[in-house]
Amino acid sequence: MKLIRFGQPGSEKPGLLLPDGSRLDVSAFGEDYTEDFFQNNGLTRLATWLAQNQESAPRVAAEERLGPPIARPGKIICIGLNYSDHAAESNMALPTEPIVFFKATSSLVGPNDDLIIPKNSEKTDWEVELAVVIGKKASYVSEEEALDYVAGYALHNDYSERAFQLERGGQWVKGKSCDTFAPLGPFMATPDELDDVHNLRLWLKVNGETKQDGNSANLIFKIPFIVSYLSQFMSLLPGDVISTGTPAGVGLGFKPPQYLKPGDVVELGIEGLGESRQVAKAYSPA
Amino acid sequence: MKLIRFGQPGSEKPGLLLPDGSRLDVSAFGEDYTEDFFQNNGLTRLATWLAQNQESAPRVAAEERLGPPIARPGKIICIGLNYSDHAAESNMALPTEPIVFFKATSSLVGPNDDLIIPKNSEKTDWEVELAVVIGKKASYVSEEEALDYVAGYALHNDYSERAFQLERGGQWVKGKSCDTFAPLGPFMATPDELDDVHNLRLWLKVNGETKQDGNSANLIFKIPFIVSYLSQFMSLLPGDVISTGTPAGVGLGFKPPQYLKPGDVVELGIEGLGESRQVAKAYSPA
Repeated sequence: MKLIRFGQPGSEKPGLLLPDGSRLDVSAFGEDYTEDFFQNNGLTRLATWLAQNQESAPRVAAEERLGPPIARPGKIICIGLNYSDHAAESNMALPTEPIVFFKATSSLVGPNDDLIIPKNSEKTDWEVELAVVIGKKASYVSEEEALDYVAGYALHNDYSERAFQLERGGQWVKGKSCDTFAPLGPFMATPDELDDVHNLRLWLKVNGETKQDGNSANLIFKIPFIVSYLSQFMSLLPGDVISTGTPAGVGLGFKPPQYLKPGDVVELGIEGLGESRQVAKAYSPA
Repeated sequence: MKLIRFGQPGSEKPGLLLPDGSRLDVSAFGEDYTEDFFQNNGLTRLATWLAQNQESAPRVAAEERLGPPIARPGKIICIGLNYSDHAAESNMALPTEPIVFFKATSSLVGPNDDLIIPKNSEKTDWEVELAVVIGKKASYVSEEEALDYVAGYALHNDYSERAFQLERGGQWVKGKSCDTFAPLGPFMATPDELDDVHNLRLWLKVNGETKQDGNSANLIFKIPFIVSYLSQFMSLLPGDVISTGTPAGVGLGFKPPQYLKPGDVVELGIEGLGESRQVAKAYSPA
């Protein structure tokens, strides 16, 4: 299944993207894609519901905004420098174990929402990433059993303000947590939708020009290891998001560096996980 | 008002600690202390409800467990090295602007719940801290108006595994996010309950021996500055928690360092914000 959420920010309804490309409104199923949904075997129950109700459920209009494909999670965990080419362009050593940081969950937005360049930002940068959504509580799980704890996968752009991240006091969260810095989706695909999650092309363009073009085959730390590793330090809860790192080609890595300015158009995609598009806007008070 | 939550983990009910020390069950008010509660002026509505219902509302039995005084927040933001004596004992330079990191919200527990020492931990440490609870969404707020965005204050123990934090890859979250590492409470006090939040004694004892004894007067970055500062990097949402840093006397600072072992009893308090007590236990599978 491919889960979507549609409607206005803060009042999204659950839906499904069908194999024929149409979008189904599954509001009548009665649950949003929350921690409780995943915790209580929601994916299986939804599949059963779908088999009985697919014909009668309403279609979503093509012009409807997409929200993030899951409700706001308990945490968004990111892995830093998880592609060797990106570590090299960042002038950082290859990690010997995963570098872990958090993004504020308040940064989560829909896949095609505007990117708001923060006030006082001069170094807003992009990072196409493969994100993992946790399906059930994971604490001290082994690498062998780790994939049992995964609900699905989604496309993520881990926007990063490099000055806030690297020049403002050591820890990275300041540059990772601005509003609109986590467009997720267009959909969350359950694992059966992908042939091999470790062999997916991922790419990103700015104003039509390719900046990133990598493959999840080149992840330094693979997904089972990451899930197991993180679960040694904290409980992963249903609906939590893990973003697995970005390949080379971020703005910081160019000589001279390239950063986003209002009007820039960022397009990205992962094979099997769809595409998203954000237009950069300057911050203006609401 | 002093907000409490009581009952078993995951099914806490809202309550109030009254000036005479008794605890009131305010379940009949009909709302937990969530983001929505704070967002929708819950404190004012609760005060109105209380004036009419204080006599008829049931009392909470003395033996009832206390949960965290607010529902699981969107984020727990921590300020590092915010007391000069603690920066010195950590052999770190005084920060020129706040050091910011996150704790996983899954680490939140009640004030007197057991501390579970994580598997493979040898350096579990304590940090008594004054925590701020956000009352309404704050984005780019000024220092002058920042306190308008504060719902209240609470006692927090920012437990930290120093090897996970400092020896495992650069970012601190691995050592800050273990389950039970964020006992909060006993209560959240609204600002009117405190004479001066910047003149509160805070202390912590291990097995009856005083380890930390500081005063919030010595915060390097004061609360209005912190709220304003953080709001330049992310939206602070109602119910979000900001922990303002710890004074000297953490285990890491002793020569040789002192860390917690099963059976240790940690007691802490802040003037006007009550006391909490955790017993350290070894991890064992549920």
